[in-house]
Amino acid sequence: MEITAVTNNLVKETVKLQQRKYRDLTGKFILEGFKAIDEAYHAGIELEHVFVLKEKSENYNFLQDKIILTNEAVLKKISTTDTPPEAVGIAFQRHYAMDDLKDTKKVVLLENIRDLGNLGTILRTSAAFGADAVVLYGDCVDIYNPKCVRASVGNLWKIPVVNIKLFEDLKNIFQNYNRIATLPRARTLLKDFKTDFPVVVMFGSEADGLSEELQRFATSSVKIEMTENVESLNLSVSCAVVLYKIFIV
Amino acid sequence: MEITAVTNNLVKETVKLQQRKYRDLTGKFILEGFKAIDEAYHAGIELEHVFVLKEKSENYNFLQDKIILTNEAVLKKISTTDTPPEAVGIAFQRHYAMDDLKDTKKVVLLENIRDLGNLGTILRTSAAFGADAVVLYGDCVDIYNPKCVRASVGNLWKIPVVNIKLFEDLKNIFQNYNRIATLPRARTLLKDFKTDFPVVVMFGSEADGLSEELQRFATSSVKIEMTENVESLNLSVSCAVVLYKIFIV
Repeated sequence: MEITAVTNNLVKETVKLQQRKYRDLTGKFILEGFKAIDEAYHAGIELEHVFVLKEKSENYNFLQDKIILTNEAVLKKISTTDTPPEAVGIAFQRHYAMDDLKDTKKVVLLENIRDLGNLGTILRTSAAFGADAVVLYGDCVDIYNPKCVRASVGNLWKIPVVNIKLFEDLKNIFQNYNRIATLPRARTLLKDFKTDFPVVVMFGSEADGLSEELQRFATSSVKIEMTENVESLNLSVSCAVVLYKIFIV
Repeated sequence: MEITAVTNNLVKETVKLQQRKYRDLTGKFILEGFKAIDEAYHAGIELEHVFVLKEKSENYNFLQDKIILTNEAVLKKISTTDTPPEAVGIAFQRHYAMDDLKDTKKVVLLENIRDLGNLGTILRTSAAFGADAVVLYGDCVDIYNPKCVRASVGNLWKIPVVNIKLFEDLKNIFQNYNRIATLPRARTLLKDFKTDFPVVVMFGSEADGLSEELQRFATSSVKIEMTENVESLNLSVSCAVVLYKIFIV
């Protein structure tokens, strides 16, 4: 198939996937560039179509009948990066339920995360440090936002991501877990901290930190050691240091 | 003073500071928002002027005659964020020389860093974990780019940042340091790594990693433990984990 008109209906539908509303409605999302498409394909993510720049199509033969040959104008229209990629794929989101948290030993919980780059980076780090799942609690941004997909660098589908809305559900699922909060005023230093598993490590938004509700829910809290004249760390940095110490060392 | 016309010369000069060429030429840079201005002021960064939204000026009394009252149109013009801040300051860059590396014990070296967000975040992390200085080697982006200033969250001026162009200079300065490279194929795991000080911890760009030249220059190399199906970590994340382990634990 070949589509070269930016007014084509499939092009218009694909552009809509830049908005969360349409991603939620259709259960689809977009993948930008060879690497993201290639990794998603090999991780078993179902692809619907892949728009490929005609001149580059030979690298995409593995996609067979999913390929739609196209031009730069269309790629510019359907992509979100400053420089349009050579290919944009339409893929189906993978959904997880609370049952997927059964038998997990190492869980990362994120509350009210608002920064797409942070979320993607934290998913990547969580996968790298062997977390079994990530829980999104409260009002978090959409993991299928193109910016988050990019920041995860092909790791979005390597770890189950479970949305939980109710505190009651959190309580039931994690009642027997060690529940760890990272707080700037905790007494225990991260370097001295030891824990048994299963464990859920909780992080709040960069602006507000962890809610009172989750601070009370925690069974212990730790503090990352830092010099006095620095107020805080970037959230994805804090998260990496804490997960490294608790999951790896 | 009050300036409300976007065609005003000082407004035009300020807009130019969004470009590296003009920042290099004038030695100035811009600060966006109350927090950045407030922190820079209290850290002794010299401010030339601060454009402040007229309605918000009472919060800026400490700046006295530096204040230029203005409107939203001017702030939109001179700022780089999607939502214009209530104030934009023009400040003088702080420059460091190789002599500032004398007697340092903990140095972070960054080679060919291209991502402004990463650079700002790494400066923030380096300051937090007690690095004495950061060295920029090769072709790095400008720390005074507004995006880097934002990502450093007020930590840009808490740590000396020294530009070094020649490998000869690196060799002279760090000849007696333990020089550590983080490499994915190193044999020593980070968690087992111990070192004496002084130490310089070296990181390459996210795209290319550390150059052959600096890999050879290293006296030891370490690998961050991670699951096999994840290829790499975000650079500012790797950097944070390594600095935490080497400087803190």
